[in-house]
Amino acid sequence: MDLEALAAGVGLPDEEARQAARERQARLVKPAGSLGRLEELSAWVAAAQGRCPPHDFARARVVLFAGDHGVARAGGSAYPPEVTAQMLATFLAGGAAVNVLADLAGATVRVLDVAVDAETPPEVARYKVRRGSGSIDREDALSMAEAERALAVGITVADEEVDGGADLLIPADMGVGNTTAAAVLVAALADLEPVQVIGRGLGVDDAGWVREVVALRDALRRARPVAHDPLALLAAVGSADIAATVGLLVQAAVRRTPVLLDGVVAGAAASVAREIAPQAARWWLAGHLSPEPAHRVALDRLGLEPLVDLGMRLGEGTGALVALPVLRAAVRVLSEMSTFEDAGSPTA
Amino acid sequence: MDLEALAAGVGLPDEEARQAARERQARLVKPAGSLGRLEELSAWVAAAQGRCPPHDFARARVVLFAGDHGVARAGGSAYPPEVTAQMLATFLAGGAAVNVLADLAGATVRVLDVAVDAETPPEVARYKVRRGSGSIDREDALSMAEAERALAVGITVADEEVDGGADLLIPADMGVGNTTAAAVLVAALADLEPVQVIGRGLGVDDAGWVREVVALRDALRRARPVAHDPLALLAAVGSADIAATVGLLVQAAVRRTPVLLDGVVAGAAASVAREIAPQAARWWLAGHLSPEPAHRVALDRLGLEPLVDLGMRLGEGTGALVALPVLRAAVRVLSEMSTFEDAGSPTA
Repeated sequence: MDLEALAAGVGLPDEEARQAARERQARLVKPAGSLGRLEELSAWVAAAQGRCPPHDFARARVVLFAGDHGVARAGGSAYPPEVTAQMLATFLAGGAAVNVLADLAGATVRVLDVAVDAETPPEVARYKVRRGSGSIDREDALSMAEAERALAVGITVADEEVDGGADLLIPADMGVGNTTAAAVLVAALADLEPVQVIGRGLGVDDAGWVREVVALRDALRRARPVAHDPLALLAAVGSADIAATVGLLVQAAVRRTPVLLDGVVAGAAASVAREIAPQAARWWLAGHLSPEPAHRVALDRLGLEPLVDLGMRLGEGTGALVALPVLRAAVRVLSEMSTFEDAGSPTA
Repeated sequence: MDLEALAAGVGLPDEEARQAARERQARLVKPAGSLGRLEELSAWVAAAQGRCPPHDFARARVVLFAGDHGVARAGGSAYPPEVTAQMLATFLAGGAAVNVLADLAGATVRVLDVAVDAETPPEVARYKVRRGSGSIDREDALSMAEAERALAVGITVADEEVDGGADLLIPADMGVGNTTAAAVLVAALADLEPVQVIGRGLGVDDAGWVREVVALRDALRRARPVAHDPLALLAAVGSADIAATVGLLVQAAVRRTPVLLDGVVAGAAASVAREIAPQAARWWLAGHLSPEPAHRVALDRLGLEPLVDLGMRLGEGTGALVALPVLRAAVRVLSEMSTFEDAGSPTA
């Protein structure tokens, strides 16, 4: 796979539209700056859409890549990997947090099994790369060929979604153990030690935490030699679901489609994607901040400031979905508020 | 006015419903704690509504009390008070930030002129207390009779709204100079100095800032002797719009109706309302954090943690409206997600 050619396809947001948005903000019936971050956010969306005023997102789309992680058995995860397949059924039945929050935020959800360690319905298994990614503390997550295939899945799915009308993409994750892989990727790229990127996980006891640190240390030892090579890094310590997310993130930028990032898994994927295509990060926003330390590290390196901070750490795109109304608010204010000219008031 | 009798009418949220909500949270198909603050928020709403699962708000209502403040001419405000009447027209035309954000968040807006220094349409002037509140750096904002009348307006409006079906109230403000009165009220109650509660305002230059500090100092000197008496404090350094908000906040609690607070003006009103009825604060949530230093002071004293922090400082209820989807997300998750029993999964 020619990653340089892929990166070369990433264009820049429209600075004229951004400037027009800033000028329009200054004419809205309110003191300049009084809407805080909403103002610059609205200009960001205008630049991404290449129009001012921007339109509210008509087809915000969650793309959830599910996969199991061998490291979950070695590490400190409090849940058995079988949970991933059960959750997949819950997503399809519409009863998971992502379903409820997507419905509330005016988004739709597409679920794809890329590496679930179980048989899943054909409609979600179409892009399956393998059953479970390898246990990254002692073996590669993927072969290089599988890593390429997973990346290509993300690219293909991004194209399908944009061709289908998606105007905002929210990559989402589900898979027990995926925060371990995410932490390793972030630590490898930021050159940090395990304890600088690891949290307590959910329902993890002391022994579990020690196992997690050991797994992370071992995986990180395997990661460091290939930290400079995004694809090799994904193969060594990533996973099929994270590799697919990386592909989706880069291709969204190629297709000039804005992305709202969720938590630490999306943050890790974005960190790898930026290694492939530095300009792609111009097309991404951070939805929320997870309590996982690796997430803050990843966002700081990406230069992204989360929109909300509510202690959420579920994944599934849920943090991004809670942030989506903030982004919509920014767009609506710019497109729908009266200007001083409309209102017949003196310009501020 | 018998404030003790008013306070005695405030009941407590339903702890059984809160406990039922926490138990239901534990059965939802996700690791316990993984939805962060959404989880306890959902229990808060259940307790306020006295039912589990709670229902999403069907009639969230912004009640905007507009009023002018004599201190705007003395202080550092960058806008002439005439702007208040012009903004009132914009609210009624539907072109202000509050209109756009209420529409997006599924709320409706009621605008009331309680002290605008202009003639306004009869439909908004029905509860008008006076034309402009006094310049609090050198005179009382209101007579004691006017303060009582403004408080009673808030009580009446709360009753009207709850009787009309409102299940969430968002008190909102508009009035040049109102952040000065808010800062004085907060400083008087917290026993702080002007520079501890004052920000730079919007578009204020150095000279304006000095005028603001001086006005605040003078008003605070007038406030301290009556800081122990909520009604006298509102008369001395408050305003008709803030007094009406105080009445609304207490009566909402009497009527067991939750309140989502906006910025520094609502925070100051809540600070005074809690002096009248300490238990009323159990019915209030903080929507957002304003950059005005007095807001953080007020929220800390109220024991409230804002839901979002986006640098917004417009007032009009806009910060609370951006936070409303977070509250809805908390409710929806609890009421609509599958439980482990539904999903046939092992309980976590």
